[in-house]
Amino acid sequence: MPFGYHNKILRADLTEGKTSIEEPGDLVYRKYMGGSSLALYYLLAELPKGTDPLSPDNVLIFAPSIITGTQIAGGSRYTVAARSPLTGAYGEAEAGGWWGPELKRAGFDAIIIKGKSPKPVYLWIHDGEAEIRDASQLWGKLTGEVQDAIHGELGDTKVRIAQTGPAGEKLVRYACIINELRHANGRTGMGAVMGSKNLRAIAVRGTQKVPVADEDGAKQAQRHVRENHTKQPGDLSDLGTPRLVEILNESGILPTRNFHDGEFDGASNISGKKMKDTVLAKTGTCYACPVACKREVAFEDDRFKVEGRYGGPEYETLASLGSFCCVDDLKAVCAGHQLCNEHCMDTISTGVAIAFAMECYENGILTKEDTDGIELAFGNADAMVAMVEKIGKREGFGDILAEGIQRAAEKIGKGAEKYAHHIKGQEVPMHDPRGKTGSALSFATSPTGADHVEAPHDPFYTGLNPKGGEPLSLMGMLEPADPLDMSPKKVELFYHGQLVWSLYNCIGMCNFAAAPLGPVPLRVLCDHVAAVTGWDTSLFELFKVAERSSVMARAFNYREGFTKSDDYLPKILHRPLENGKLKGHKIDTERFQEFLKTYYEAMGWNPETGYPTRGKLAQLDLLWLEDVV
Amino acid sequence: MPFGYHNKILRADLTEGKTSIEEPGDLVYRKYMGGSSLALYYLLAELPKGTDPLSPDNVLIFAPSIITGTQIAGGSRYTVAARSPLTGAYGEAEAGGWWGPELKRAGFDAIIIKGKSPKPVYLWIHDGEAEIRDASQLWGKLTGEVQDAIHGELGDTKVRIAQTGPAGEKLVRYACIINELRHANGRTGMGAVMGSKNLRAIAVRGTQKVPVADEDGAKQAQRHVRENHTKQPGDLSDLGTPRLVEILNESGILPTRNFHDGEFDGASNISGKKMKDTVLAKTGTCYACPVACKREVAFEDDRFKVEGRYGGPEYETLASLGSFCCVDDLKAVCAGHQLCNEHCMDTISTGVAIAFAMECYENGILTKEDTDGIELAFGNADAMVAMVEKIGKREGFGDILAEGIQRAAEKIGKGAEKYAHHIKGQEVPMHDPRGKTGSALSFATSPTGADHVEAPHDPFYTGLNPKGGEPLSLMGMLEPADPLDMSPKKVELFYHGQLVWSLYNCIGMCNFAAAPLGPVPLRVLCDHVAAVTGWDTSLFELFKVAERSSVMARAFNYREGFTKSDDYLPKILHRPLENGKLKGHKIDTERFQEFLKTYYEAMGWNPETGYPTRGKLAQLDLLWLEDVV
Repeated sequence: MPFGYHNKILRADLTEGKTSIEEPGDLVYRKYMGGSSLALYYLLAELPKGTDPLSPDNVLIFAPSIITGTQIAGGSRYTVAARSPLTGAYGEAEAGGWWGPELKRAGFDAIIIKGKSPKPVYLWIHDGEAEIRDASQLWGKLTGEVQDAIHGELGDTKVRIAQTGPAGEKLVRYACIINELRHANGRTGMGAVMGSKNLRAIAVRGTQKVPVADEDGAKQAQRHVRENHTKQPGDLSDLGTPRLVEILNESGILPTRNFHDGEFDGASNISGKKMKDTVLAKTGTCYACPVACKREVAFEDDRFKVEGRYGGPEYETLASLGSFCCVDDLKAVCAGHQLCNEHCMDTISTGVAIAFAMECYENGILTKEDTDGIELAFGNADAMVAMVEKIGKREGFGDILAEGIQRAAEKIGKGAEKYAHHIKGQEVPMHDPRGKTGSALSFATSPTGADHVEAPHDPFYTGLNPKGGEPLSLMGMLEPADPLDMSPKKVELFYHGQLVWSLYNCIGMCNFAAAPLGPVPLRVLCDHVAAVTGWDTSLFELFKVAERSSVMARAFNYREGFTKSDDYLPKILHRPLENGKLKGHKIDTERFQEFLKTYYEAMGWNPETGYPTRGKLAQLDLLWLEDVV
Repeated sequence: MPFGYHNKILRADLTEGKTSIEEPGDLVYRKYMGGSSLALYYLLAELPKGTDPLSPDNVLIFAPSIITGTQIAGGSRYTVAARSPLTGAYGEAEAGGWWGPELKRAGFDAIIIKGKSPKPVYLWIHDGEAEIRDASQLWGKLTGEVQDAIHGELGDTKVRIAQTGPAGEKLVRYACIINELRHANGRTGMGAVMGSKNLRAIAVRGTQKVPVADEDGAKQAQRHVRENHTKQPGDLSDLGTPRLVEILNESGILPTRNFHDGEFDGASNISGKKMKDTVLAKTGTCYACPVACKREVAFEDDRFKVEGRYGGPEYETLASLGSFCCVDDLKAVCAGHQLCNEHCMDTISTGVAIAFAMECYENGILTKEDTDGIELAFGNADAMVAMVEKIGKREGFGDILAEGIQRAAEKIGKGAEKYAHHIKGQEVPMHDPRGKTGSALSFATSPTGADHVEAPHDPFYTGLNPKGGEPLSLMGMLEPADPLDMSPKKVELFYHGQLVWSLYNCIGMCNFAAAPLGPVPLRVLCDHVAAVTGWDTSLFELFKVAERSSVMARAFNYREGFTKSDDYLPKILHRPLENGKLKGHKIDTERFQEFLKTYYEAMGWNPETGYPTRGKLAQLDLLWLEDVV
């Protein structure tokens, strides 16, 4: 009997309107475990090279992991993966909440979706069964309405719903998937893939307990976390990720004014403390997590009506819709956030797209004629909110920004591309490599394009969060590093940090709940995996799974024609920061090339091609990639 | 307060006749832990490039580890390292017994010896103090006599003595160091380095307990081993390593007749069972080990007087002095073994040298005139024993063989080199890569030249020892491999096996007591390290230390001019086995080159140069090597 998983993967062929169940066997679970790693295993095996991401042939995978649904803090996340319509590369996004655990409790370890339904549908999954149901009445509706409707139709408000929204239906290239209206698989446009398949939602309900091999062992891990987690003022429980607004601003690396600045005058107006003192209605959490970092904001005034059920903006959103657009109006940011969640759009790409348009506007590349009469200037909060909605509806100028800034800049022309800060076509998230060099490697080499959860942007090297967790000493990381360092020493730190974050994406673990940021030490996490599965495993094996994931993603992109030359930073990061504590700092171009080369070598990738060597494939038991790439 | 170590390394400058104590600090212990890794750290920092191995400038290091002296089964070993007079490359050899733990109990974590004493001396180390004492009266004496003399002089028979013998004094290039007359640091001529320094012995006595951070945790590990170790007929407790004679013979890979054959007609006459039924006096063990694989043989007849205190031949010796020379006379092998221990010669190199000479003799390259009248034919037991003694005394033809077969073949000329099976100048040990391909990589790439304990010669891939331990599943090794496989898949298995064996050489752990061959699982070993030191460590970190050791050794050799072209197999292994179960099998030359290339890549070494990339150095926190190599 398997523990931690059911040995059941749900397949749905939407063209045929059929579902089936696959039993992949123990070795697949042990080698890939779940999340990004499991998804890549199937994508590489089943997605034909060169598939149009918005065609029925794209393969869309939902994957929790072998520990999802057990009681470890932070273990609530699941991956959605497919070829990305934003980048054409590997697409992947994680979300927390309750949906992933519920899927496991419903008896499934993952879902593989192919084809395109002739009409709008949703998937209804419950206790080992699956059904494709009509969603014609739901099409075009906001996420809140759809959730209410499905709850009503199924007669159970405890059904957990992951869905895309109108933005996904309209194939906004950075449309997201959202569960419970607030937990987003944000990046790389997975919602557009869902929309392209006429699949509006996946509703799940389960009453099965995830089988655990060693209940006592698992409880011991949970107890450790409970006993060692203490809430402190300014920590994630108290202020959530919004706490970062002021910390990064003080460090001179709060992305501001489309990456010109690192310090934002209005930072305190969009800070975690400001949120707590004003619009915060309550705090929330994900499944089984004592950290409870989630925000719920609610208010109604003459401009906006913001409902608590859409959650509240995370740090990334406060920065992308806020400082990055020079908007210091917290209520407007909350309203923009709600619009994103109602329509299902990635708040990062949305904010970056708007800031890009604002800079074009300020430089005369765009005029009011182009922007449907909106004065799209930096700092114009109402304009920001209006543009969010236009993008979600692909209305007027919003239709252009809905394509992502790479395509939008092409369409706009007139040199607009110099204001479009993306990597591999994905908008850069709210971290500035000029002040934490780990993120230079992270962003440039991430298989999903500029991404903030594929690899660490080194807060835990900088001492930004000295209270929140353990050091990585048990990985042999014994000395701190300078956040501005770009020597090979930093490659070592990044290499190890990336192993940790890749692991979390393979086992559905939250970066904020687990070490080094959160209260779940790596040792405890490993013991928990062993207790749940009954495997005689080790951190060494877990990191091997993590590295497999990195290598498979690299292989995916290589097959789609991506090369070393796609591992770059937007030019602006090679130019000096224009204000703040790190004014004048930039990423030196030549040193960055050396940095990249050393990183490839550390990964066992050929520095000439950026592709893993045969020996690396052999070491990771991934030689089968030679047959599919 | 440090746990597991004293933060005290003894330095002895024999030229000056002075000792001193160094406190390297916690970071050195955590990064290198002990054994080969710690020794390499000091050698690379302090031994000048190009130093004549037999000159006073060579640095000789004795290094147990952070767990030596604690109660974990198998954790009794220590490393001796220096530049090898046999190979000119990195020299290293491990030994078990009681000497390593005693050194720790005497208050020292390692000894670094430099210079050359003007007259014979020995070191006397006791409870934090060290003394250089006169050994003029001991010079020229057999090991047993020296041990008795020092015990008498110090008035304590519990003093543990590691010494070289007359062979070391006479600079036999494969002279060994032996402790308690029976545990040998066998390979790479460390005894000759000791002899070259006029240092005959190191006597140690200590009454300090090694400080342990978590006594309960450490006891738990010990209890696990005790409770799970069950003796079985045919296992190491019952027959010791001599059990391998018949197992390998049946598998067709018992090295026989100077590597012509894989099956030996007389195997049952020199087997573990034969030993048990005839000459075995009793069994013995090393410090804290329940496996108790050690043999004591004792008998007296008209040919030989063999004393129990010299132990008994291990498998390697039974094969090298036995099957390899076609000698099936167990008593003669025991006598040869005792001579090796009395004079301090590596039994492997000794046996291989004699077999080499036998083949030269049979082919007319050598005659009785050359061999001091001895009929040096394959199978001539008396000739074998006589030659062992002649080598130990550098007497007559023995003086030539004492140089090692590479130099001896040069001296003999007439094409003798085709019978000289060495790698980097060191005689190949008693494992045949033609029937277990892991050893092809192991032998060819070992920094010490052909060596049987630097990396696994894959018994645990072949199921040779299914009872004795755990699989390596916790390293993610989930599937068995074919012992004859030479695909990249085998590189994966070898890579992982090498990490394990390298680790054991860094922490002084016995390959037969620890997983996968013995009763100490890797998980328990890791828990024990954590309990002893108080470090929050993991297998991941331990394997990082292991990999550091491999890379540092590679760097050592690179500095001394060794290149990729020194990673080869002797030609005979590319020719078919001439008899037995695997008759006709050989190592295909071209496939072997591919095999090597894939291995370099898996290690993160440049396949063009065989040298670690800068990225690999960065990943392992070994960038300092760039300054010294």
